[in-house]
Amino acid sequence: MLMETCPTHVGVSMYDMAIRLGHNQYGKAETHLVRIMRDTPRHEIVDLNVTTSLRGDFAAAHTAGDQTKVLPTDTQKNTAYVWAKKHSPDPMEAYGLSLARHFLTYEPVAQARIEIERFAWSRATVDGEPHDHTFVRTGPEVRTAAITSDTEASHVIQGLKDLTLLKSTGSAFKDFLVDQYTTLKPTDDRVMATSLVARWRITDPGDGLDWNAVYDRVKRILVARFATVESLALQQTLFEMGSAVLEEFPEIAEIRLSAPNKHHFDVDFSSFDEDNRGEVFHADDRPYGLIQVTVERDDVASAPDAWVASAGLA
Amino acid sequence: MLMETCPTHVGVSMYDMAIRLGHNQYGKAETHLVRIMRDTPRHEIVDLNVTTSLRGDFAAAHTAGDQTKVLPTDTQKNTAYVWAKKHSPDPMEAYGLSLARHFLTYEPVAQARIEIERFAWSRATVDGEPHDHTFVRTGPEVRTAAITSDTEASHVIQGLKDLTLLKSTGSAFKDFLVDQYTTLKPTDDRVMATSLVARWRITDPGDGLDWNAVYDRVKRILVARFATVESLALQQTLFEMGSAVLEEFPEIAEIRLSAPNKHHFDVDFSSFDEDNRGEVFHADDRPYGLIQVTVERDDVASAPDAWVASAGLA
Amino acid sequence: MLMETCPTHVGVSMYDMAIRLGHNQYGKAETHLVRIMRDTPRHEIVDLNVTTSLRGDFAAAHTAGDQTKVLPTDTQKNTAYVWAKKHSPDPMEAYGLSLARHFLTYEPVAQARIEIERFAWSRATVDGEPHDHTFVRTGPEVRTAAITSDTEASHVIQGLKDLTLLKSTGSAFKDFLVDQYTTLKPTDDRVMATSLVARWRITDPGDGLDWNAVYDRVKRILVARFATVESLALQQTLFEMGSAVLEEFPEIAEIRLSAPNKHHFDVDFSSFDEDNRGEVFHADDRPYGLIQVTVERDDVASAPDAWVASAGLA
Amino acid sequence: MLMETCPTHVGVSMYDMAIRLGHNQYGKAETHLVRIMRDTPRHEIVDLNVTTSLRGDFAAAHTAGDQTKVLPTDTQKNTAYVWAKKHSPDPMEAYGLSLARHFLTYEPVAQARIEIERFAWSRATVDGEPHDHTFVRTGPEVRTAAITSDTEASHVIQGLKDLTLLKSTGSAFKDFLVDQYTTLKPTDDRVMATSLVARWRITDPGDGLDWNAVYDRVKRILVARFATVESLALQQTLFEMGSAVLEEFPEIAEIRLSAPNKHHFDVDFSSFDEDNRGEVFHADDRPYGLIQVTVERDDVASAPDAWVASAGLA
Repeated sequence: MLMETCPTHVGVSMYDMAIRLGHNQYGKAETHLVRIMRDTPRHEIVDLNVTTSLRGDFAAAHTAGDQTKVLPTDTQKNTAYVWAKKHSPDPMEAYGLSLARHFLTYEPVAQARIEIERFAWSRATVDGEPHDHTFVRTGPEVRTAAITSDTEASHVIQGLKDLTLLKSTGSAFKDFLVDQYTTLKPTDDRVMATSLVARWRITDPGDGLDWNAVYDRVKRILVARFATVESLALQQTLFEMGSAVLEEFPEIAEIRLSAPNKHHFDVDFSSFDEDNRGEVFHADDRPYGLIQVTVERDDVASAPDAWVASAGLA
Repeated sequence: MLMETCPTHVGVSMYDMAIRLGHNQYGKAETHLVRIMRDTPRHEIVDLNVTTSLRGDFAAAHTAGDQTKVLPTDTQKNTAYVWAKKHSPDPMEAYGLSLARHFLTYEPVAQARIEIERFAWSRATVDGEPHDHTFVRTGPEVRTAAITSDTEASHVIQGLKDLTLLKSTGSAFKDFLVDQYTTLKPTDDRVMATSLVARWRITDPGDGLDWNAVYDRVKRILVARFATVESLALQQTLFEMGSAVLEEFPEIAEIRLSAPNKHHFDVDFSSFDEDNRGEVFHADDRPYGLIQVTVERDDVASAPDAWVASAGLA
Repeated sequence: MLMETCPTHVGVSMYDMAIRLGHNQYGKAETHLVRIMRDTPRHEIVDLNVTTSLRGDFAAAHTAGDQTKVLPTDTQKNTAYVWAKKHSPDPMEAYGLSLARHFLTYEPVAQARIEIERFAWSRATVDGEPHDHTFVRTGPEVRTAAITSDTEASHVIQGLKDLTLLKSTGSAFKDFLVDQYTTLKPTDDRVMATSLVARWRITDPGDGLDWNAVYDRVKRILVARFATVESLALQQTLFEMGSAVLEEFPEIAEIRLSAPNKHHFDVDFSSFDEDNRGEVFHADDRPYGLIQVTVERDDVASAPDAWVASAGLA
Repeated sequence: MLMETCPTHVGVSMYDMAIRLGHNQYGKAETHLVRIMRDTPRHEIVDLNVTTSLRGDFAAAHTAGDQTKVLPTDTQKNTAYVWAKKHSPDPMEAYGLSLARHFLTYEPVAQARIEIERFAWSRATVDGEPHDHTFVRTGPEVRTAAITSDTEASHVIQGLKDLTLLKSTGSAFKDFLVDQYTTLKPTDDRVMATSLVARWRITDPGDGLDWNAVYDRVKRILVARFATVESLALQQTLFEMGSAVLEEFPEIAEIRLSAPNKHHFDVDFSSFDEDNRGEVFHADDRPYGLIQVTVERDDVASAPDAWVASAGLA
């Protein structure tokens, strides 16, 4: 839907070219809602940051200021809150699918997009026991989901961000292309660190899928492969990580990995009365390498709309 | 180029589906370089944050860890620095085009992407006069550029972000769709505020274009239209802003506007011994509306690759 | 007041030492309020981030959970809003003084602290003219104030933060102490840049003071001195900046300057076919030097309470 | 040392008042160093952000630009790196004490301040086993230390920040002072959440102290008391948390707790066909309550210098 241009021609400029409305979307970003399940003394918490957006024929709102078919973003926010009560927000992917389907019932909405971040909490420990109603934030990684639904299909992209990984050996970088601007020295042994963003698209997200289990297992695979691949480059490590996920989960059509290479530079101790054999590093902020890799199945249709973010037209 | 999938099949999983490398890119993000022009006592400053990425046939790096054709991101960084000396970094669009063309000379590179942020500085004032070599940062808005080049063509997207605008009247929001979750009251007069991201794609960016003049003029048009449109919705205001830019610049094929609706809520004074007639507002952080609009010409080919960011595959 | 310890002994530990409540304060932080003056078609905007805190005998709230004398932070927020209507929020120092005096009327409040940030807006330009009701954020610098009032006196600290300055020559750093860990090379000519925080305490802030004029003039002096001092070190530059302010304003008892040394490193071009004579710099993020200097009069009493921030007990 | 004013009178203004240098300090902020212990295949990681500052008689640097006794911040950075090799960075308090004592050997240095943040990493799990050389960042809480040493004594403040806690019941707020600006309703049951900053000063930090064990135990006490106190106000909860720490650790002279009240507002469902009995909350960003409490022993001398941060003169 997004990929078709709205056909409404809305004016002719002095240069005799028609100017028209192109891709557009609108919604409410970052409704931060916390849902407490308190049916028993042992409470549960679900902490979500929800973004909704609607795509469809909203040309009149743009070209004539006509709001009669526009569901206000304030109402979208209210709906996200109500849905967290009417429907379980856990797993959040099912919550998001339900919310997306609701928005599709409004006439001009051709596609609804729901993006969710889930912040993790663990139970506080008191006298060695997990507490009934007190929680401690854990992280830094954040679980994410992006649901894109139209009347024909829904796409679900599960993911995580800010999963920060470091290996202190088992990573080389050498035999690279050298030109007149190369000053980097090859190395057999370096620190490799990243703050991983991973997103994987799940085909046929039927009711039987255990979203939480898939998430936990994919995360474990990513961490384990990061650890065990003898790395020749971050590209290779990422490709192996993604491949391992696809090998285990036939439901996953593709996985995208975005990884800043968080450089850890050996501090030069040559002027000092100490040596430094891969022991003391400067953890630099900027610039950083940025490596992005998709691993995908060759027999599954691509789904470009699934990857257009609520903030993606900019 | 990005839109074609790398054909290298790299393995067959136990489920008998081929897993392959999909879209990928890599580069150096956020090389923050400052260039001082000091040929005369009156110095000039150009303050750039440069991100480079390369797209092409880098399959061997991913599937075999083979770096022989990989230009390291460290070298890309060095090149960005050297280019700031060999070539004028002002206008930055020309600098970026030159840098992109350089990266295209490496064999596996099919497409080079250069993204630049420019931070603005004005001369310090001393005794009423602009100073020769002291500068004060201005903002908050940041000028941006994204250059995408392959052997056939280059796309340049000029833009800005964090341009924060507010109008204290001349904005209504009413006659919208009402459902069972609607609690928003219609209004004839509200504060409208946004932190604008705007990006406009320039066709045929030939040598004759005065990039700095175009930037300044587009910014002025955007601000002026924001001010003068009697707003019925942010969508309509954005569409008018974009249309005004296209009407004046035939070189601009499309413009994308992304605008958070930074809500300013009237504080409820009904319990107090004062009234509040649109005078005291709570400037809220989250959630916020998010409106994204494209305005485009109908006779210009679209350029999807031009819009794929260096961090865009995630 | 803050410097006296609350005498309430509240318990005796098993180690036979009395444990008691020490310094404490509470309030509402970051009430972001926007005030529009709309009595004429030419509107004015005042955009403030207000933090209030109360200090006094709140021991019962801590040791017994007794709230009977506790003015809730929610009420403090409401009051900040109402005060922006009852009293002019411009100049914000007078607004803060009035708000502080109000909070002192509550019995347990011995000292009230009001901290304010003011975000700057300029009028939008339309057809070369400043617009009546549309504004553009300027910055990045933010004007600040901290008012501390008790029944006997009020202290006002005016200030600014995030004023980012850079001089491209006129700064040396050499003849410093050298030890076995020194690798820095002395230089006669470097870029000097900082993001300045400055705060100046004004004695006897009577009604006749033109707060806005003082602010503007101090800011101009700081910028001008940064520009014109031939710098031998950031310490010296800051001392000269502060001294210049005190020389012009007898009302200012002391000024504190906090300045990160935002390092701009010459990029090493020795491997390349270009030279770099102070032309291309890497603007680094971390680590950074941090220089803090107080310049003061010797005949004015110090005011330690004036410098204890609302977030200062941590 | 910091509390004495430098006696150097450096000028007489036109108003015949002497202007002089007051409190000052300088150093290197945020040297982000990672230390890998790799003597065995099972590596260890210590990830520190180190800030150093020096206080003493640096008047000549300010008033005359004389650097002969100034240890450059660049050298301080180098020293922090070398110290991470010469001395174990774990526990970081001992590392900081050693580094502080080193800086005191330079003639003008009367007081050295070392501030450290430690970012936590846990071992990656592979096939159910902790991995030898791969680590995953945990958090969000960060362990902190501040060491302040002069020739007579050293103060150590241990602490943590960003420890985010939430209890979904067991918190009331009622019977508070009501005035004409009060709109808050009393409640018997609310969500209480905070992002805790805690700092505790340890007297006589001799060599026998197990810094890591103290840290772990204090953190556990804080979390447990937050959970178990039936809260009548955040002030009371914080006071109980602090008291519990002092009761268990005679070595701790005082503890300071700074706690934003991260408001979770019940979403008003009265217009909807659902009820909301403490189940769906809006987690708001700003404004927030800010409560700061000190709990201390009455028989231990205070140590104001210990609490002056490297960025504290602003």
